[in-house]
Amino acid sequence: MQNNLSGIFPPLVTVFEDDELNLDRLTRNVRKYERRDLSGYVLFGSNGESVFLTRDEKLEIILSVREQTKKSLIVGTGSDSIKDTIQLTNEAADKGADFALIISPSFFKTEMKHHAFLNYYNKVAGSVMIPVIIYNVPKFTNVNVEVETIIELSKHPNIIGLKESTEIVPRISEIAANVHPGFKLIVGTASVLYAGLISGASGGILALANLLPDECLKVYQSVKEEKLDEALDLQNRLIPVNKAVTNKFGVAGLKAAMDILGYDGGNPRLPLEPLNEAQLIELKMILKSASFLE
Amino acid sequence: MQNNLSGIFPPLVTVFEDDELNLDRLTRNVRKYERRDLSGYVLFGSNGESVFLTRDEKLEIILSVREQTKKSLIVGTGSDSIKDTIQLTNEAADKGADFALIISPSFFKTEMKHHAFLNYYNKVAGSVMIPVIIYNVPKFTNVNVEVETIIELSKHPNIIGLKESTEIVPRISEIAANVHPGFKLIVGTASVLYAGLISGASGGILALANLLPDECLKVYQSVKEEKLDEALDLQNRLIPVNKAVTNKFGVAGLKAAMDILGYDGGNPRLPLEPLNEAQLIELKMILKSASFLE
Amino acid sequence: MQNNLSGIFPPLVTVFEDDELNLDRLTRNVRKYERRDLSGYVLFGSNGESVFLTRDEKLEIILSVREQTKKSLIVGTGSDSIKDTIQLTNEAADKGADFALIISPSFFKTEMKHHAFLNYYNKVAGSVMIPVIIYNVPKFTNVNVEVETIIELSKHPNIIGLKESTEIVPRISEIAANVHPGFKLIVGTASVLYAGLISGASGGILALANLLPDECLKVYQSVKEEKLDEALDLQNRLIPVNKAVTNKFGVAGLKAAMDILGYDGGNPRLPLEPLNEAQLIELKMILKSASFLE
Amino acid sequence: MQNNLSGIFPPLVTVFEDDELNLDRLTRNVRKYERRDLSGYVLFGSNGESVFLTRDEKLEIILSVREQTKKSLIVGTGSDSIKDTIQLTNEAADKGADFALIISPSFFKTEMKHHAFLNYYNKVAGSVMIPVIIYNVPKFTNVNVEVETIIELSKHPNIIGLKESTEIVPRISEIAANVHPGFKLIVGTASVLYAGLISGASGGILALANLLPDECLKVYQSVKEEKLDEALDLQNRLIPVNKAVTNKFGVAGLKAAMDILGYDGGNPRLPLEPLNEAQLIELKMILKSASFLE
Repeated sequence: MQNNLSGIFPPLVTVFEDDELNLDRLTRNVRKYERRDLSGYVLFGSNGESVFLTRDEKLEIILSVREQTKKSLIVGTGSDSIKDTIQLTNEAADKGADFALIISPSFFKTEMKHHAFLNYYNKVAGSVMIPVIIYNVPKFTNVNVEVETIIELSKHPNIIGLKESTEIVPRISEIAANVHPGFKLIVGTASVLYAGLISGASGGILALANLLPDECLKVYQSVKEEKLDEALDLQNRLIPVNKAVTNKFGVAGLKAAMDILGYDGGNPRLPLEPLNEAQLIELKMILKSASFLE
Repeated sequence: MQNNLSGIFPPLVTVFEDDELNLDRLTRNVRKYERRDLSGYVLFGSNGESVFLTRDEKLEIILSVREQTKKSLIVGTGSDSIKDTIQLTNEAADKGADFALIISPSFFKTEMKHHAFLNYYNKVAGSVMIPVIIYNVPKFTNVNVEVETIIELSKHPNIIGLKESTEIVPRISEIAANVHPGFKLIVGTASVLYAGLISGASGGILALANLLPDECLKVYQSVKEEKLDEALDLQNRLIPVNKAVTNKFGVAGLKAAMDILGYDGGNPRLPLEPLNEAQLIELKMILKSASFLE
Repeated sequence: MQNNLSGIFPPLVTVFEDDELNLDRLTRNVRKYERRDLSGYVLFGSNGESVFLTRDEKLEIILSVREQTKKSLIVGTGSDSIKDTIQLTNEAADKGADFALIISPSFFKTEMKHHAFLNYYNKVAGSVMIPVIIYNVPKFTNVNVEVETIIELSKHPNIIGLKESTEIVPRISEIAANVHPGFKLIVGTASVLYAGLISGASGGILALANLLPDECLKVYQSVKEEKLDEALDLQNRLIPVNKAVTNKFGVAGLKAAMDILGYDGGNPRLPLEPLNEAQLIELKMILKSASFLE
Repeated sequence: MQNNLSGIFPPLVTVFEDDELNLDRLTRNVRKYERRDLSGYVLFGSNGESVFLTRDEKLEIILSVREQTKKSLIVGTGSDSIKDTIQLTNEAADKGADFALIISPSFFKTEMKHHAFLNYYNKVAGSVMIPVIIYNVPKFTNVNVEVETIIELSKHPNIIGLKESTEIVPRISEIAANVHPGFKLIVGTASVLYAGLISGASGGILALANLLPDECLKVYQSVKEEKLDEALDLQNRLIPVNKAVTNKFGVAGLKAAMDILGYDGGNPRLPLEPLNEAQLIELKMILKSASFLE
């Protein structure tokens, strides 16, 4: 598979019913996304509640989504354990994953620096059957993979991209300008889609694309066509909604917004809880105020 | 098994050779500890590098240590996934674990508050076959289980204690004074052994007890016998060494110090790296300066 | 003046009326404190809202309090500017200050390390007419003066003590055991009064002593008389109240609690705001629940 | 004076000799900058070491720089004290300052939220003789003025702009799209010059413009002329240099880089220290590697 990491990828939410997987409802979402010009899907991103899923549940989900699409399937398979990461990645590949999205190890925070990250990613990338995408998400890991480390890792033939989930645009710019040719940087949140694309990113893995896929695609297209004003206007409408479904209300908010806009989010898994009534009202007001809901 | 959570427990390091488990070397350490008046052992604490171990490796280790001792075996089995936590805990119980040490869930940091912790611990504690000890360790998780939450959870019949790995003594004091009768608070680092015991803690799970078990026991005994000056003097000698084998040099430093003092630490597992020569020299100087090495 | 930095010192709140100083109300508080066995007073600690006071206001307050007492007057005179700090300290000494409490410089956070602190404190201490007490308060400065730095600075003949406003008891223990003879460590918050005194501290500068001076003195006396159980019981009653008047409700809460218990706190200065009705009710419940209010 | 807050403004470093002001050397820098198409100057920004300057030194500097230029003079006059801020701002206006750059109050971190910021800025802006620019710089203050607060404050007729010193481009975008007409957002660090301008900022107050004024102006001009590729290429050359003279080496690095490139930086004031030899070599390599030094 060639490295076609550009465009928009929704990191799919996992649909639960009575706290158990409901694959039918999940694949119904996928069928709706399939009618759009999305580049593929991410399974087991942060907002996919991957930390609450068992290994067996993950493999089931891959099989099920793989049946629905020929597009790129990027699958989150990383953990602090190199052994577990390699094993799960290869099992995922076996079930149909195209790329492995591998979150930076993070438990021993003070030791997770340049050398430890090189050790980790080089070992993993050399032992798995599908290409690796580094996943840097300090808001969840409380560690940061430095620019120099990314540049160094970009030389590995089986490390082909970075999902950068900070809003620090200078990082995007500096990384994109200095990595090995062919290595792609994908922004990890819709808030920096416009600025990221203009600074060298090739696409976005965007929680927001679960509920507003067309609008995310539109920002992407407008930038490609150099219609900057149009892109910025739409970007500015997306920012408050993106804040609501990520930092403000978290996964519960993301799923609630999907429900409101005609997709199927449902409740988050325990220990998370669904939004309460007041939060739901606030969420609707945010959607209305940005004109995504009447 | 009654709730005898008092005294000193070393959280055993996991011994690797060529990056693979070496159970013989691990159990040789245990046999040395068995000659001391320790209260039991912890497997898969943070410094046991539990995040680098697979499920199968963990079960093997439990079986192997269980054979060496009749003392309490406290086993770390927690992760963000409630399902995985319940399953691993029950498997561990099956192999001989007496208590489950369950680290707080932490991935979704902003949501990990009072209600989510109640959801998590009540669900887990109600579904496992052995008593649960809460493990609060903000330096690794970047979340904190509040005093009020601990007090609330202490009422659950199957939640019997807390490993508190901060150095915030007022937390220890307030928790110990307000939890349900019988619930025990164990300090999680040797730096607060003396002050913790004097403030209501019943014991310590101390990385330092891997290398200086007798000295940790001596602080404990001196406090019990109300020889406070003696206890404080020894505590003050322990503090710089404890800093070296935790915050300063991490697991690699802990293992190196064990090697220096006649136990078997070996190298940490990848992606961690052993100390370099300069660090080793500094570590030895710290041990000498505290008179634990000639 | 000899170094008698032991016992309990209230860091006086500054009383405002219509957002301007009211010295009469302030000195009325002092007259009440004078009837207790307190060791002295601190002016312009953090909770004295020193950052909201002008230089002229500060000098006025010193004069006014000096008239009311022969006890030690410790005066906060530090800022990032060495020049300003020296000048204000000498003016304060001129008005009657006995000791200068000098907060660590903190603006350039990443540079405020060992050498910068040595530069700063050595220069200031060598240029002022009264002895210097280092003030380490990371919750406000976001920098930390390391143990090694304190030990080094303790050798300066004009640096005679440390107000340590963290709750990290191992720091207290390690510092107290290693500083130059005669250098005193005073805890900076009532939550660690008991554990700090037992670990080598000589006293406390305690916001809580503005409202509960007798109780703070009682903990101090009980520890001196080795009545540890009594001291710990009272300490445990103080902890929730101390939390309320510091971290939970800040200066506004401290002043409100003083009003409730018969002292004169009044409103904080702008931009701070007084507690609202719901907060006041919660504060009263905390005082009642700890039996300091009927 | 009309609100012409656009273009590039160097926040001037303060030149010291033997730790005392040297106004001649400072004004010699200004004369060099005067030959460029800069929009004005900032005095007493963070990198101007304003926290180390006395009030009298500040007034002297204003007078001296005012004599050299007819361009906009933006002067940092804020502190936590509303009284001091108003007084210093009016004195600065008296000496020739055109705008007051007022850093957010920050001492009582947990209280510095929406209402406190409204209290502070509304009171100050209503009491000073020159227009106010809000200065948000969390890396030094450890507080953040929220987007909603900025939008609210932008309605005040005497609050005319924001210096935003984070690299969070979505903040820039959201603020610029929602503030009161005429209110300007200026980025506070060169790393986000390109992305900020493209997202709605009107200019930059850039430490980097002390050493590379022409290059900063060039990025600005290229964006105005919609030569995005050119702007991005230059931006990417500036990023590593900007990192070196801000986060990596701080004020000492900024001043050293000025010395290397033909301006006059000199040493920082105590307690800061100049770069050591190894750091100087690294700094030169960074400048060479970006082709700003042969």
